[in-house]
Amino acid sequence: MTKTLRRLRPAAVGAVRIEGGFWGPRIETNRAVTIPHIYRQFERTGSIDAWRGKRRHSYEGTFPQFWDSDIAKWMEAAAYVLESGRDAALERRIDRLVGLLAKSQWSDGYVNTYFTLHRPGERWTNLRDMHELYCGGHLIEAAVAYAAATGKKTFLDVMRRFADHVDSVFGRARGKRRGYPGHEEIELALVRLYHATGEARYVRLAEYFVNERGRAPSYFEREARQRGETGRAWAPLSYYQAHAPVREQRSAEGHSVRAMYLYSGMADVAAETGDRTLLAACRRLWRSATRRRMYVTGGVGSAQQGERFTFDYDLPNESAYAETCAAIGLVFFAHRMLQIEDDGEYGDVMERALYNGVLSGVSLDGTRFAYANPLAVHARPPGDHPTGFPPERQEWFPCPCCPPNIARLLASLGRYVYSTGPGQGSIHLYVQGGAELEVGGQRVLLEQRTEYPWHERVDIFVTPERPARWTLALRIPGWCRQAALSVNGRPTPLAPLVRRGYARLTREWQARDRIELRLPMPVERVHAHPRVWMDAGRVALQRGPLVYCAEEVDNGRDLSDLVLPRGAALRASLQPRLLGGAIAIEGRAQRSDMQEWGDVLYRTDRWRTAGARLLAVPYALWGNRQVGEMAVWIREG
Amino acid sequence: MTKTLRRLRPAAVGAVRIEGGFWGPRIETNRAVTIPHIYRQFERTGSIDAWRGKRRHSYEGTFPQFWDSDIAKWMEAAAYVLESGRDAALERRIDRLVGLLAKSQWSDGYVNTYFTLHRPGERWTNLRDMHELYCGGHLIEAAVAYAAATGKKTFLDVMRRFADHVDSVFGRARGKRRGYPGHEEIELALVRLYHATGEARYVRLAEYFVNERGRAPSYFEREARQRGETGRAWAPLSYYQAHAPVREQRSAEGHSVRAMYLYSGMADVAAETGDRTLLAACRRLWRSATRRRMYVTGGVGSAQQGERFTFDYDLPNESAYAETCAAIGLVFFAHRMLQIEDDGEYGDVMERALYNGVLSGVSLDGTRFAYANPLAVHARPPGDHPTGFPPERQEWFPCPCCPPNIARLLASLGRYVYSTGPGQGSIHLYVQGGAELEVGGQRVLLEQRTEYPWHERVDIFVTPERPARWTLALRIPGWCRQAALSVNGRPTPLAPLVRRGYARLTREWQARDRIELRLPMPVERVHAHPRVWMDAGRVALQRGPLVYCAEEVDNGRDLSDLVLPRGAALRASLQPRLLGGAIAIEGRAQRSDMQEWGDVLYRTDRWRTAGARLLAVPYALWGNRQVGEMAVWIREG
Repeated sequence: MTKTLRRLRPAAVGAVRIEGGFWGPRIETNRAVTIPHIYRQFERTGSIDAWRGKRRHSYEGTFPQFWDSDIAKWMEAAAYVLESGRDAALERRIDRLVGLLAKSQWSDGYVNTYFTLHRPGERWTNLRDMHELYCGGHLIEAAVAYAAATGKKTFLDVMRRFADHVDSVFGRARGKRRGYPGHEEIELALVRLYHATGEARYVRLAEYFVNERGRAPSYFEREARQRGETGRAWAPLSYYQAHAPVREQRSAEGHSVRAMYLYSGMADVAAETGDRTLLAACRRLWRSATRRRMYVTGGVGSAQQGERFTFDYDLPNESAYAETCAAIGLVFFAHRMLQIEDDGEYGDVMERALYNGVLSGVSLDGTRFAYANPLAVHARPPGDHPTGFPPERQEWFPCPCCPPNIARLLASLGRYVYSTGPGQGSIHLYVQGGAELEVGGQRVLLEQRTEYPWHERVDIFVTPERPARWTLALRIPGWCRQAALSVNGRPTPLAPLVRRGYARLTREWQARDRIELRLPMPVERVHAHPRVWMDAGRVALQRGPLVYCAEEVDNGRDLSDLVLPRGAALRASLQPRLLGGAIAIEGRAQRSDMQEWGDVLYRTDRWRTAGARLLAVPYALWGNRQVGEMAVWIREG
Repeated sequence: MTKTLRRLRPAAVGAVRIEGGFWGPRIETNRAVTIPHIYRQFERTGSIDAWRGKRRHSYEGTFPQFWDSDIAKWMEAAAYVLESGRDAALERRIDRLVGLLAKSQWSDGYVNTYFTLHRPGERWTNLRDMHELYCGGHLIEAAVAYAAATGKKTFLDVMRRFADHVDSVFGRARGKRRGYPGHEEIELALVRLYHATGEARYVRLAEYFVNERGRAPSYFEREARQRGETGRAWAPLSYYQAHAPVREQRSAEGHSVRAMYLYSGMADVAAETGDRTLLAACRRLWRSATRRRMYVTGGVGSAQQGERFTFDYDLPNESAYAETCAAIGLVFFAHRMLQIEDDGEYGDVMERALYNGVLSGVSLDGTRFAYANPLAVHARPPGDHPTGFPPERQEWFPCPCCPPNIARLLASLGRYVYSTGPGQGSIHLYVQGGAELEVGGQRVLLEQRTEYPWHERVDIFVTPERPARWTLALRIPGWCRQAALSVNGRPTPLAPLVRRGYARLTREWQARDRIELRLPMPVERVHAHPRVWMDAGRVALQRGPLVYCAEEVDNGRDLSDLVLPRGAALRASLQPRLLGGAIAIEGRAQRSDMQEWGDVLYRTDRWRTAGARLLAVPYALWGNRQVGEMAVWIREG
C-alpha cells in the first residue's frame, strides 16, 4: 500500500482504562447489564436459534435477514469487554457462537445464517436489500475485535475465508459481479481486516466497493430486473448513496446510517490508498452533513420516511428521526477524519454526537434503547408518534440495530479517547482513567482525573518510560472560549500552543509531569442557523459538551409556551438526587395563564403571563423518569 | 312538523343582487370563467361521458364513483347563476344533463350514473365508501336549486323519486336497511327537499340518518363482512363520524368535510324537528371545531392523512390540510347555526372562513383551485409537499370536489348575506348590492354601498313598501372594537343596541332611511392560544375580516427568519397595482445577515441582523403571482 494519509492512529481498546467519573458507571452498566440484556433478547426473538439452525414458524415484524449483523455487533461489543478484562463465561458464549458460525460456513467461504437456512439458492441475488455484505462486514469487525482481545484465530479465519469469497465474487474482472452493498459496512470492515492481517487485497476490495457505487448503469436496477422485478423500486438510488459515483456526491443523502458507514469506509480507503480525490469527497460530505444537516445533539437523518437526510437546514424537532445508529455512524466518520486530519473540528462533532445523540440512545439503567432521538415531544394522543416510535425508550425493536451498536461503541470508548502519531500522543476526549500508549518508540502512561463534563477541571499525569521530547496534543473543545492550562503548576498561555483545535505541548516529558487543564463551562445559549426555520426564535442551552432539554416532569406541560427571556440569568448546579447526580440548569422564564386565556383560539388583546422556573437537564438523560413533553429548543423572548 | 327552532331564514339567491365592491368581480369571474372552466374539465376527464352512458377504458387516478356529486355541485352553481339572471345556453346545458340523468333513472327511482354503468349489481352494498347517498344528496340540492331558479320540475321530480326510493330502502322498519352514508350530505339535502316540496317524510328520513349514525353494532362493519371483507377497515369509524351516536360525540372528529356536512345536517334536522338534544350536540361540536380546532383562516381539518381533525390545538401550518371543501362546510354549518341562534358568533366564523380559507381556494382569474390551504410554505425540494399538494393552485384534481363546491358557494353568496325572521331583517355580511326581502309581511328593499372589507364604511339604504316598525339587525363583527352607527345622519350609540353580536335597530322604517355603519379596521395583531405550539411566539396580522400573510415575492426567501418587533407600527395602504387593487400591510421588521452567519449550523455569539420591510397581503389572495414561501404566522420579537 502507499503511505497512509492518517496522521494518527487510535489507541487499542485494551490499552485504555476508563473508571469512575462520568463514563465509568455507564460503561460498567453496558458490560454488566446491557450486553447480557441484548443476548437475552436474541434468545427470546429467535436469532440465536437461527444460528443453531433452528427455524421459527414466523418472523412477523422482524427482519431475520439482518440478524447476523445484530449478533455480530454484540460479539464485537463482548470482544471489547474481554479486551478490557477477562470474563470466561462471556468468552465461552462467543466461542459457541463462533462454532455455530464456522459450522454454517459454505465450502466456498460464504457465511450468512439467514440465507443458509432459508434461501440458499438466492445468495448474492439482491445486494440492494438483503444485507449479506453488511452482515458479513459486521462479522468481520467482530472477528477482528475478538482476535485482538483473545488471540484466538478461528473467528478471524472464518471471516477471512468469507472475505476471500467476496473478493472472488465481486470486482471489475471478467466473470465477477460488479455489485456493491445496499447497506454499506463491508468497506470499513475490510480495511479493519487489512489492519488485522496485513493483506492489502482487502483494501483493494473495499476500494472497489467504494468506487463502483453509483456508477451507471445501476447495478441495483440491473439486479432487480434479473430477479424479475418490474415497476418502480421502493426507494430512490440516493437512499443507498448509489445515485452518483461517490466523488460526485455533493451532499449527504439517503439513509443516514448507510451514509455514515459509507463515508467512514471512504475515509478508510482514502487513508490507506492515499487517494486525495476520495478524501476531498469525504471532506465535502462531512461539511454537508455537519454544517447543514446535523441536529445540535449530533443526530443526523431528519426524516423517518427513508430514515434519511432531507435537505439543507431541514431539522424538524418533533419528528427528528436522528437514529441512534446514525449518530454512532457520525462518531465513526468523525473519528476517522480526526485520525487523518488531526483537527479539532472532527473531535468537536464526535464529542457532540457522543454526549448527546448517541448517549440518549440508552437508558441510565442500560435496559432500554431509543431508535429515534427527537428533539421535542409534544402532548399527543396515544399512538400518534411523529418519529414512528413512542417517545419512551424500548427494551427491543423489530429491527434491533441500535442496541448492540451502542453497546459496541461504549465498550470500545477508549479507542475514541486517545490516539498516537509520529512523535505525538493525543487526547481527544476527557475521560477519567488511563492509557498506555506508544509514543516515539517508547511506552507512555497517560492518566486523566476529571469529572468532565460535569466539571471543568482535567488533571493529566504523564509518565513516559524515560524522559523524551514529543508532543502531547490536548483537544480544546470548540465550545470552550476560556480554556486555561498549567504544566506542573505553572500557568501556560494557551493561544500560542493551539493549532487545528489542539493545544500542542512539545517538550521533554518526564515522569510525574502534571497538566491541569481548565475548560470553563458557563451555560451557553446556542442558536441555530436562521435557515433552520423550526428553531427560529428559539434557543438551546449547552454547558460544556452537553446539550440540555426541558422535560415535563420538571417544568409542567405546554413546554412550547415557556419563554426564556433573552437576558435571564442561568444557573448550573449539581443536583445529587437528579438522574443519579447531574448538573441541572435553572433560570426564570415566563408562561401564559391558560385559565385567563379562556376557551377561545385567537385573541388580539394582551393575555396574562406569569413567572415560571425553567429547569433543564442533559438531553442524553431525558426520559429516564417519566414520559412527557420534552424540548431542546426553548422559545426565547 | 313541530315548530322550527330557526329564528331566521336565509334570503333566496334570486332576491339578492351583488355588484361591484369586493365581491362583484369575484362572482362575475365565477359565472363567466370558473363555471365554464369546470364544465370543460368534466368533458375532458370523462364524467359527462359517463352521464351519456359512455365508459372509458380507464379512470386511473380519478374517482368516478364521486362524479355525480361533482356534476351536481356544478349544476347547483349554474342554477344559482340562472336564479340571478337568465342564460339560455347554460339552461339548455343543464336541461341536457337532466335529460341524461332522467334516462338513467331506474324504475325504482335509483339514480347513480357510476353504479348504473359499472356496477349495477352492487347498489347499496357499500355505503361506507361508495358515496351513493352523498351523490344523491348533491343531486337533490341541485334539483331544488334548479326548480327555484327556473320553475322547471323534471329534475326535482327525478330526485323526489330517488328520495322516495331511499326512503323505501333505509330506515328502522322491518325489512329496511339500517344504513347511513359514509359521506354525509343527504341529510341536509333531504331537509332542503322538504323545504321545496313540503313533504315532511324527507325530514324524518334525514332524522333517521342522523340518529342511526354511530350506533353499535356498526352498520359499516356488518356491511363489510357481508361483502366478504376481512381484516381491518382502512379507516377508523371516527373518520365517518360513526364512532358514537351523534349526541354522544364530544369533539369534531374524522374527515373534516364529512364532519361539517353532518353537523350542518344535524342543525337542519334539529331546527325542523325542534330536537333540543340534537341542537345541544351541534353546539358542542361547534365549540370543539371552532374554539380548539380551527385555523385563523377558518380552515378546519389539520391532517392530510385522513383529511381529518386531529386533536385540540393541533394546528400545524406548513402541513395544514384545511381543505377548501371543509372551510365551505364550516360556512354551511355556521350559516345554519346562525339562522337558529341569531348570534354573531356564528356570523364571525362564517365571515372568517369565507374571506380567508374559502376564498383562498380559487385564483383571482377563476381557473385554478386549492384543495389544501396551508398557512405556511417553506422552501423545499421539488415534489416535497407536506399537504400532499403542490403549493400552487391547480386547474383540476383527481378528486375534484373543491372547484364546483366553491363555484356553488360563490354563486349563492347572497343567501349568506341576508336573513329574515319574525319582524326582523338581518344583514350578516357587508357586500355591495341589494336585496328584496319580506319583513313583517311587506316587501323591503335593502341596499348596501360599501368597499368592505377594504374600507370601513357601509351605507345601507332601507326602502320598505310602506312605513312599518320592525328590527333591522346589523352584525357587528367580533373583530371590530370601535363600530359606530348613524341613522339618517344622526350618530346613534351602539352599545345599547347590540345583543348577540348584532346591532338591533327597532324603529318605524321609512323609505329613504339611511344607515351609515363604520367598522374601523386597524391592523390587529392576532395571537393563538398558547397551546397551539406551532404559533407560539408568532403573530398573525388581520385587518377587518382579512387575515394576511407574507409572500416570498414581496419579502424574499427565509420568511421564518423575519421578525416583527412587538411594538412596530403597521401601516395599511391601498396598492392599486397589487393583486388587482388590494390593501397591503407594511411594517419594519428584522432579518438575519445570512452572509455574516456563515457556513456553520450553531452559534453561541451574537449574529448580525438588519432592518427589513415586511409586506403582507390578504391570505385569500396569496399565490396569485409566483410560487414561493408564504407565512401567515410571523415571528414576533
